Amino acid sequence: MARLGRLNHVGIATPSIAEGLRLYRDLLGGTVSREPFDLPAQGVRVCFVDTPNSQVELLEPLGENSPILKFLEKNPAGGQHHVCFEVADIHAAKADMEAKGCRVLGEPRIGAHGTPVIFVHPKDMGGTLIELMETPRGDH
Amino acid sequence: MARLGRLNHVGIATPSIAEGLRLYRDLLGGTVSREPFDLPAQGVRVCFVDTPNSQVELLEPLGENSPILKFLEKNPAGGQHHVCFEVADIHAAKADMEAKGCRVLGEPRIGAHGTPVIFVHPKDMGGTLIELMETPRGDH
Repeated sequence: MARLGRLNHVGIATPSIAEGLRLYRDLLGGTVSREPFDLPAQGVRVCFVDTPNSQVELLEPLGENSPILKFLEKNPAGGQHHVCFEVADIHAAKADMEAKGCRVLGEPRIGAHGTPVIFVHPKDMGGTLIELMETPRGDH
Repeated sequence: MARLGRLNHVGIATPSIAEGLRLYRDLLGGTVSREPFDLPAQGVRVCFVDTPNSQVELLEPLGENSPILKFLEKNPAGGQHHVCFEVADIHAAKADMEAKGCRVLGEPRIGAHGTPVIFVHPKDMGGTLIELMETPRGDH
């Protein structure tokens, strides 16, 4: 990896986006500029809460095979699910991570910001699920 | 809370800062501009890894009563420990969070960036341990 990009967002699993918005928007004072939306390919319903430099991604289960359902079985109140960093080229990043012995979960697919993403296995990343996301063109 | 400030850092617990640096600096390509240092008041040894907009805070246990020891008992490989947001005034933030029914863990104390911080109980924040940190003067 040439250089780690922006910390795009922290993914927070929640049983209810409405409850997540109560905490991150109403209580902490984050801003929401886009309505919640479904991301069926990843089995999640998503809502971003903006901070001046980054975002919190609230993740609610979508469908019976949602990975968030398994997370909530272990953590019924929700909690930190993943951290997402930007990279310049997702295919180069995937090849680089695999060359360094990290397991990448599946092929790149379109993520919540419309650019391809991959996930790296937490067992190869010190217990943290890492999402790598190609920087949207025109940004930054 | 008037308005949520910057996502200052994500706190990642690790059994070894050296191992954390292998992942976040050597493997992912983050940069390190300050040597690891002890924060005895919080029972942690700390190293920040910079991204262009934010930071990862690697946390290693320091002392026998380190809160990181308890975390590592449950998560031996380490993992996401907390998320830190900036606020303009830590005392106002504490009063505001308590008025909204959130438990604040102790009194404000000096954090890793030299300004006062508080932690909000994860049971009141959807399972996520939230650190609020007063924005360093002169920054932003």
